[in-house]
Amino acid sequence: MSKRYKILIEYDGRPYVGWQRQINGVGVQGAIETAIKKFTGSDVTVIGSGRTDTGVHACGQVAHFDLNKDMQPEKIMGALNFHLGDNPISILHIEEVSEDFNARFSAKQRHYTYKILNRHAEPTFNLGLVWHVYHPLDAVLMHEAAQILVGTHDFTTFRSVHCQSKNPIKTMDALSVERRGNDIWVHASAKSFLHHQIRSITGCLKLVGAGRWTSEDLKAALYAKDRAELGFNAPPDGLYFMKVDY
Amino acid sequence: MSKRYKILIEYDGRPYVGWQRQINGVGVQGAIETAIKKFTGSDVTVIGSGRTDTGVHACGQVAHFDLNKDMQPEKIMGALNFHLGDNPISILHIEEVSEDFNARFSAKQRHYTYKILNRHAEPTFNLGLVWHVYHPLDAVLMHEAAQILVGTHDFTTFRSVHCQSKNPIKTMDALSVERRGNDIWVHASAKSFLHHQIRSITGCLKLVGAGRWTSEDLKAALYAKDRAELGFNAPPDGLYFMKVDY
Repeated sequence: MSKRYKILIEYDGRPYVGWQRQINGVGVQGAIETAIKKFTGSDVTVIGSGRTDTGVHACGQVAHFDLNKDMQPEKIMGALNFHLGDNPISILHIEEVSEDFNARFSAKQRHYTYKILNRHAEPTFNLGLVWHVYHPLDAVLMHEAAQILVGTHDFTTFRSVHCQSKNPIKTMDALSVERRGNDIWVHASAKSFLHHQIRSITGCLKLVGAGRWTSEDLKAALYAKDRAELGFNAPPDGLYFMKVDY
Repeated sequence: MSKRYKILIEYDGRPYVGWQRQINGVGVQGAIETAIKKFTGSDVTVIGSGRTDTGVHACGQVAHFDLNKDMQPEKIMGALNFHLGDNPISILHIEEVSEDFNARFSAKQRHYTYKILNRHAEPTFNLGLVWHVYHPLDAVLMHEAAQILVGTHDFTTFRSVHCQSKNPIKTMDALSVERRGNDIWVHASAKSFLHHQIRSITGCLKLVGAGRWTSEDLKAALYAKDRAELGFNAPPDGLYFMKVDY
């Protein structure tokens, strides 16, 4: 009798080619599947709530998988963390869920945070974990401009050419920018996102913060519905998948 | 005509044998002196406000040095950060100070923070940057017990056998413990500390938080004035030199 489990996952994306396995390397999904095989002997597929790119991190990725083995959820989590070994991947929570729960399709809203370190000196503790922008950014201007992107829009400008979504129209439920000392955090919430959408938005908000773009430039880029009008695509380093609501 | 400069330094202590050079490796001090030599050609001695041990970090170490070269302070900081290269050491601020300023002897108060990650799963983003304690700790109990150590005491119990201080009597101006989610932070402020003092105190507060020691046990350890009565010495990983007041 198979049971379904929902897990909450934190990972440092630096050593991985992203959530999914690829020809050129190991994905976070594969690392978790390998760990499960070590204590169950079974080939289990782990379904994530969403993919993340190479070098993108997660504090609250969610996934589900089915197991035939009769084990207490806490024991499964302990075994998983043990067999993940030196992988910078941690299972923070586990619970048994009904068979109609699907980490991907049951998701109601996804939350991401993009972290910028805004100071002259290079990162010391968090190289690869933030985007280092050394010229001063105005986070208030960035926040004001960001409100242009809230709501339902055709986000073609802010979408990777490799994006597989059929529809470039998405609804941004919330987009805010806050400064905490030298840290600037961009928070984005939506039911779903296009490929590179948050990195593309952050890259353009940075131009606004640096005074190189006005709010009107951002609006013009959005309305152009043309990838060629993108100002800048921020690197993966600063992006964190924070939370999924079900 | 020589000028004296005061610098504010952040560093990840993981690759270093501590602030000072040692027979077995490079210190943070030496890395900065090497960087200064690269753009001045001179052998300059950098005096830190205090030593840190192998693997201990800093967000706000302060040091001073004298230069004969006529350069704007901002240019010196830029050159220093450039020549520090891949070292996880950053100069955050620089200013010219009078010749009677001494980073070590002018210091009025020093502030440290010890970071504990208190959760089942191992650290992902910050391995070596926190002390991972997997059993639940009661931070309120830890804070209450910590107050026993505030004030002037003979801290022999909480002092390394290698401590070179002539006097084990120190005044702890403030010692507090706060929980932020899974993070527990121990904040300590004093004019000066004994070798291993904060790590030794944190190790014992952890025993209190885990319910293995009572406040009375901590008091008895302090009054014993005997290193053999120390409960536990916390690892260097979680210790950060935060700030110096002048």
